[in-house]
Amino acid sequence: MTVTLLGTGGTQPLPDRALASACITVGGSTVLLDCGEGTQTAARRWGVSIFKMDAVLLTHYHGDHLFGLPGLWQTMAALGRTAPLVVAGPEGLSQVVRVLYALAGPLPFPLRLQELTDGRGSFEIPCGQVEAFPLRHRVDCCGYALTLPRAGRFDPERARAAHIPLRCWSVLQSGRPTEGFLPSQVLGPPRRGLKVVYATDTRPCPALRKAARDADLLMMDATYADDADLPKARLYGHATCREAGELAARAGVRRLWLTHYSAAVTDPGPGLAAARQAFAPAEAGRDGMSLTLKFDPD
Amino acid sequence: MTVTLLGTGGTQPLPDRALASACITVGGSTVLLDCGEGTQTAARRWGVSIFKMDAVLLTHYHGDHLFGLPGLWQTMAALGRTAPLVVAGPEGLSQVVRVLYALAGPLPFPLRLQELTDGRGSFEIPCGQVEAFPLRHRVDCCGYALTLPRAGRFDPERARAAHIPLRCWSVLQSGRPTEGFLPSQVLGPPRRGLKVVYATDTRPCPALRKAARDADLLMMDATYADDADLPKARLYGHATCREAGELAARAGVRRLWLTHYSAAVTDPGPGLAAARQAFAPAEAGRDGMSLTLKFDPD
Repeated sequence: MTVTLLGTGGTQPLPDRALASACITVGGSTVLLDCGEGTQTAARRWGVSIFKMDAVLLTHYHGDHLFGLPGLWQTMAALGRTAPLVVAGPEGLSQVVRVLYALAGPLPFPLRLQELTDGRGSFEIPCGQVEAFPLRHRVDCCGYALTLPRAGRFDPERARAAHIPLRCWSVLQSGRPTEGFLPSQVLGPPRRGLKVVYATDTRPCPALRKAARDADLLMMDATYADDADLPKARLYGHATCREAGELAARAGVRRLWLTHYSAAVTDPGPGLAAARQAFAPAEAGRDGMSLTLKFDPD
Repeated sequence: MTVTLLGTGGTQPLPDRALASACITVGGSTVLLDCGEGTQTAARRWGVSIFKMDAVLLTHYHGDHLFGLPGLWQTMAALGRTAPLVVAGPEGLSQVVRVLYALAGPLPFPLRLQELTDGRGSFEIPCGQVEAFPLRHRVDCCGYALTLPRAGRFDPERARAAHIPLRCWSVLQSGRPTEGFLPSQVLGPPRRGLKVVYATDTRPCPALRKAARDADLLMMDATYADDADLPKARLYGHATCREAGELAARAGVRRLWLTHYSAAVTDPGPGLAAARQAFAPAEAGRDGMSLTLKFDPD
């Protein structure tokens, strides 16, 4: 599972900082999180295949998270896409997509909409399992947790003891029943998988803390670097870097990437320092930053 | 009058080549020609003030010329714009703007639409005089000529002979009547002004040749570098670099910038060479290229 930050800016795209967006690639499939103006260009810049994008998860419908979608669709069409594209987002999705489609359509591939009531929902995409949860912004907004589950360890002793033929082993190992045998006969308890959480734009909130619990990576709104901007953060429904660090610590995540910086944040250093006071492993997100996550060693 | 190419690419925005767009600044005002995804970022990159943009002239409504407009509007709003913004384009403009406004609005500044019937129209913007003319593309499309007229030379002898008071001289010199005196009493015949022509996407065509007549600068569709791509150029309503050179030569322009390259054109060299066989002063447009045009010396 490879996570790449395509952009880390809020509100306006800048020459050296694209609008906040990330993508996660698992095997041959990629999920895109938010799509502001310039996201498709950032994907090219950082070597992320647009063709492999099978799902776009939108946090909300402010322009800086949305206006790149019609261009992305047309590029997908130009690249010959015919496979369905999942598009998920909070309530209002079908209306927003209708307007975008009026600009960009017709398209040679179908859109499969996942409109999330109250910002909640759970669905599968080629990359893994998506859990949406409500964020606290000025408008309906939701965050996303992508999890890659991991089956329990296969126990050949139990397989032999149950007289399960060798031809069935790999199927059972992958978690599927076969020829009357069940995975539970040969697998240990499920092992820790991988979980990546994307949460912007938002104030810190309980739903985010809960969704981020034990995540391998949390990418979180850190619009303001300076603690003195906390009133603005409250007013506009964003978080400070320090707040992101505090939430990461309380949620017990393994890694935190700060993102969605205000255009006024030209140096992420002071914000990072504030976040690290609460959560030492915090990192300042930067465009093109990438990380490959692997299952824990057994 | 300063002309800047904000981008030179067709169809898809690339990390090192923004979508075709140009702007022209005269005094404190700028006119933007086309606005694909990423145009506002390119403006920042090349030091062009978004705040000074008083008019956006759209050639047509393909996404690569249009999808940057809602984001540009929102950035203008964030910068505190309240002054009206002229938006011009061929037939269908009001419908297109309605869809874009549904995405980006409400805005704190009014839009003044100039919908051009049959791609033709003449109107004034703060930068100068705009003349729209029909191009030959797959959809309704128009080019634009921006002219900055220049009054005749002021003749103080004639002013004295007509007993015109000194206080009236500068008003008459600027071409306006005052206190019963007429500019024609003191000005010689109008002198050559400045004319810049923007024409993409298009096949070479008589309306363009006519509009480009004697222009100081023509920026023209040169999608294909290789003469062998002429059938594609005909099919998709574009021009080859050689055709752009030929048209420039026939129109008697002073300068030609090739633009709107296909993504397949990674080296503009061969296309430029072909254009120069017909028109020696041709230049390969590149992102950020800029030129300040001045009136001819008297």
